[in-house]
Amino acid sequence: MKSFTLLLLILSFILYPLPSSSSSLFKHRLLRTEPSSTKQTETKISYKTKYLQQNLDHFTFNNNLPTFPQRYLLNTDHWDPSSVGPIFFYCGNEGDIVWFAQNSGFLWEIAPMFKAMLVFPEHRYYGESVPFGSKDEAYKNASTLSYLTSEQALADFAVLITYLKHNYSALLSPVVLFGGSYGGMLAAWMRLKYPHIAVGALAASAPILQFEDIIPPQTFYDIVSNDFRRESVTCFNYIKQSWDEIASRGQTNDGLVQLTRTFNFCQQLNSAEDLSGWLSSAYSYLAMVNYPYPSEFMMPLPGHPIKEVCRRIDGGPPGTSIPERIYEGVNVYYNYTGEAKCFELDDDPHGLSGWNWQACTEMVMPMSSSPDFSMFPPYEFNYSSFEEECLKEFGVKPRPKWITTEFGGHNIHATLKKFGSNIIFSNGLLDPWSGGSVLQNISESVVALVTEEGAHHIDLRASTKNDPTWLIEQRATEIKLIQGWISDHYQKNKVIFDM
Amino acid sequence: MKSFTLLLLILSFILYPLPSSSSSLFKHRLLRTEPSSTKQTETKISYKTKYLQQNLDHFTFNNNLPTFPQRYLLNTDHWDPSSVGPIFFYCGNEGDIVWFAQNSGFLWEIAPMFKAMLVFPEHRYYGESVPFGSKDEAYKNASTLSYLTSEQALADFAVLITYLKHNYSALLSPVVLFGGSYGGMLAAWMRLKYPHIAVGALAASAPILQFEDIIPPQTFYDIVSNDFRRESVTCFNYIKQSWDEIASRGQTNDGLVQLTRTFNFCQQLNSAEDLSGWLSSAYSYLAMVNYPYPSEFMMPLPGHPIKEVCRRIDGGPPGTSIPERIYEGVNVYYNYTGEAKCFELDDDPHGLSGWNWQACTEMVMPMSSSPDFSMFPPYEFNYSSFEEECLKEFGVKPRPKWITTEFGGHNIHATLKKFGSNIIFSNGLLDPWSGGSVLQNISESVVALVTEEGAHHIDLRASTKNDPTWLIEQRATEIKLIQGWISDHYQKNKVIFDM
Repeated sequence: MKSFTLLLLILSFILYPLPSSSSSLFKHRLLRTEPSSTKQTETKISYKTKYLQQNLDHFTFNNNLPTFPQRYLLNTDHWDPSSVGPIFFYCGNEGDIVWFAQNSGFLWEIAPMFKAMLVFPEHRYYGESVPFGSKDEAYKNASTLSYLTSEQALADFAVLITYLKHNYSALLSPVVLFGGSYGGMLAAWMRLKYPHIAVGALAASAPILQFEDIIPPQTFYDIVSNDFRRESVTCFNYIKQSWDEIASRGQTNDGLVQLTRTFNFCQQLNSAEDLSGWLSSAYSYLAMVNYPYPSEFMMPLPGHPIKEVCRRIDGGPPGTSIPERIYEGVNVYYNYTGEAKCFELDDDPHGLSGWNWQACTEMVMPMSSSPDFSMFPPYEFNYSSFEEECLKEFGVKPRPKWITTEFGGHNIHATLKKFGSNIIFSNGLLDPWSGGSVLQNISESVVALVTEEGAHHIDLRASTKNDPTWLIEQRATEIKLIQGWISDHYQKNKVIFDM
Repeated sequence: MKSFTLLLLILSFILYPLPSSSSSLFKHRLLRTEPSSTKQTETKISYKTKYLQQNLDHFTFNNNLPTFPQRYLLNTDHWDPSSVGPIFFYCGNEGDIVWFAQNSGFLWEIAPMFKAMLVFPEHRYYGESVPFGSKDEAYKNASTLSYLTSEQALADFAVLITYLKHNYSALLSPVVLFGGSYGGMLAAWMRLKYPHIAVGALAASAPILQFEDIIPPQTFYDIVSNDFRRESVTCFNYIKQSWDEIASRGQTNDGLVQLTRTFNFCQQLNSAEDLSGWLSSAYSYLAMVNYPYPSEFMMPLPGHPIKEVCRRIDGGPPGTSIPERIYEGVNVYYNYTGEAKCFELDDDPHGLSGWNWQACTEMVMPMSSSPDFSMFPPYEFNYSSFEEECLKEFGVKPRPKWITTEFGGHNIHATLKKFGSNIIFSNGLLDPWSGGSVLQNISESVVALVTEEGAHHIDLRASTKNDPTWLIEQRATEIKLIQGWISDHYQKNKVIFDM
C-alpha cells in the first residue's frame, strides 16, 4: 500500500492530491487540456500584475544569494486613500495566485463596501514567483529548494505590505489578512507574528493544530469517513470493502487489465496501489468540497457531491460488482461533466508540487487511518518511514517539531487567552481539515466561527444565489468583525489622524 | 573625525566601544591582563555548563550547513519540578554568557523564592557558541557571518527552551524571559514572537525603538550630554570645548606626542580622532553606568561616576589646560583603581566584536549629535556613508528597515494596546538608551517602569547594601508582576494540572 500510505502522509491542503515533481507519488488525476481556473471563475475580477524583488533569505545576510520576483495582483478600483482605506491582503497559498484570486470571491465582493485595496501576493516558489530564474532551477535540489518555508513566505508578505504602504502613502491604512487552508494558516500566523503590520486575520479552514501530537492523527480520515457514513452507511461499507477487493484483483496482470478497463484509465495501471491512491484522493477532496451548491473550485461538481457519489455507489442494480459501484461514484468527482474520455493518474495544472517539499521539511502532519472508524485501510503514521521517504525523495531531513516551536499550537487556548487579538478561525465541520483547526473561541477577539454544514473555506468563495442561510450569516458575522477591527484601528490612531 | 563618526554609528549596547575584529575602528580601551568578569562578580553563582547542537539556519532547510554548539549555563539548585516550578531564562547578549550571568544578580537572588530553574544561554557567534569550529572561521567573511542575526538567535532560544522542557519533563513550567540592553530587546521580541514558549519578559533598558525614524537620531547623545550638564555646566562646557582643542593639537606630530603623553597612552597616538573616539566612548559608557553606588560591570567605578568625573574636570587649579582636565576626568572611567600604568586603544576581553556585524546588517540605529544640545561635536547621521563603511568593512549591505518590518516599533502604543501581554520595559532616565525604549504603559500588562535616577539595566544587577529606595521598590514591583504572570499561567492551565 505504498502510494496510499504516502497519500496519508503528504496530503495537499488544496483540493488536489499533489503529484511530486520527480517521483511516482500521487499519480492520479483527471487529464485536463487547460487549467480549470480559466473557465471556473465565479467572480469577475480585474487586477494589475506587479512584481517586487524579494530577498531569498530574510533571516541571514548572505550577499551571494540572488533576489527573486514576487508576483502580486493589485486592485485599487475601490480604494480610498484619502480616508486611509484598508488593505485586504490575501496570503497566497501553495499554487498559482491567479487561481486563488479567482476563487476568493468574498474579498472581491466586500472590497467596494470597505473601499479597500486588494492585494493577492503569490507564495514564493509557486506560479511565477520562483527564484533562480526558472521553476526547473528552483526545484532542482534540496539546496535550491531550501528557502521554500513558511517563515520566509511570511517575511515576503511583511516586506511587501511595508513596501506598498510606503509606495501608496498608506502608512496608517489598516491591513486585514485573509487566507484559506494553508493560506489561512499563514494569515493566522502572520497576525500573531506581525501584529504591527496587520490589524486582523480571517483564517478560513486553517489547520494550525494538525502538527506533532496536538490532535489524534486519525482525525482527518475519520472526518472524511463520517462525511460518507452520514450520507449512507451502505456506501461507507462498499468503500470500506473495496480496498481488499481492488488489492486482490491487482495481484494478477489480468486483474489489473480489468481494473484499468473498469476505471477507464487511458494507460494500463501498474498496480492496485495507484488506483487506491486515486480513489482515496477523490474521497478526501470530495469531503473538502462537499459544498451545498454546485461548484467548480478544482472539479465541476454538483451540490452536496458526496450525497451524489453515494447515490451512485449504492444505486447500481443487484449484481453490480464493488469496483463497478466505486467507479460510478468517483466519476462524480473526476468526470461530472462527462467530458473526460479516459483518465490519467498524473496532473498538476495549478503548480502545487512544491507542497511535497514543504511537507517533507516543516509541514509534517502525522495522519493515520483508524481500523475502527475509518472507511480507509488501517494505517498508522510512522515517522521513521516518513523521514526515510523524504530523504529518498529530496535528500532532506524533516524537522517535525519545528512548526510547533516556531508557531505554537499546544495548549493554544491558554497561550492566546490573554495574548493576541483579532483572528477569526472559520471552519465547516464537514471539512476534514476542521479537526486540526481552532473550533472554540479563545478570547473576546480570537474567535471561532463553526458551521455544521460547511466545507473547506466555503466562506471565502463568491456568494451564489443558492447560498444557505447559515453561510449568508457567517459572512455577515465576518464582515461585522472586520469592521470592528478597522474601527478600532481608526480609534486607536485617532491622535495621529487628527494631527 | 572618522572614528568618532563611526562611534556614533556603531555603539555597543554593552559598556564598551566595540573594537572591530579586523579594522581600525574603536581602538580605545584600557589594557587588561585578565577579563574584568573574573574579579568583578558581585553575586556568587554556580552552574553547570551545557551545550545544545543548533541548526545554523532555522528558516531554511539546507542540509549542507553544519550545526553548532550553543553553550548554556544551568542551575537547578532551587528548581522544584514537582510543582512545575518556573524557568527563568536570560536572553544572552552579544558577548560571553558567563559575564552576563555574573552581572545579572537579580535572577540569582530571586530564583530561590520562585523555586526557579535558571538558564543562561549564550547568543550565537559569541563566547563559545560559534559555528564552523572556531571564532576565526566563523568571523572569516560575510558568508560565514551571515547567520549572525537576532531572528536566528531567538529561534535558538525557542529550540533550547523546547528541548529543556522536554528533557526536564517541564512541559507546563512557565518560562519567564529576562534580558538587559540588546538582551532586553531579545526578551521583549521573544515574548511577542513566541508567546507559546514564555509567559512574560522583563526587558531592561531595551531600546527597541532606536531604529529607522522612530525617535529623533540625536536622542542618545543628548541624554549623555544632559547627564553631564546636570552635574556641572562648567564640566559640560569643558568637554564641549575639548574637541576643537584636541583636533587642533592633533594636526602636528608634536601635538600628537604631547597628547599621547597627556593621556598616558602606551603607544604613540596616530591621530586626534582616535583620542576623540576613546573619550566619547568613556562619556557614553559613563552615562550608562552612572549608578548611585560603586560598581564594576565593565570598569571599577565609584558611585555617581559622572559626578566624580566632573569634579575632577572642574577641579584642576587655575591654568590647567583643557586636555589635562579631560584626562583627569576620564581617568575615573579608565583607571579608577590606579592599576593601569598606561592605556591601549584596543581591547575586547568579553568578545563583543560580533556587534559590528550586527550593526552593519540589521541593527542599524541612526545616531546624530545635535549642535544645540550635545556636548559632542555636531554630527548628522548619513545613511549612504554608513552603508559604504559596512560594504568596505564586511562586504555587506545593511537592511535599515528590516528590524521595524520584522519586529515593529512605529506606533507601538496603538499596535500593542490590544495585542500581547506580560512585558515589563524597565528604564532609568540617566541611561542614554532609555530614549529609544518604551517609557509609557501600553496596556494593563505591557508596562513601563521608569526611574528618574536609574542607569543601564541597574535592576538586573545584584542588590547591594547601598541600593536606594527607588531601586528596592522597582525590583519589588518586578517580582510582583512576575508572580502575577506565573499565577495566571497556573490558573489558565488549572484544568491540565488537575488532570
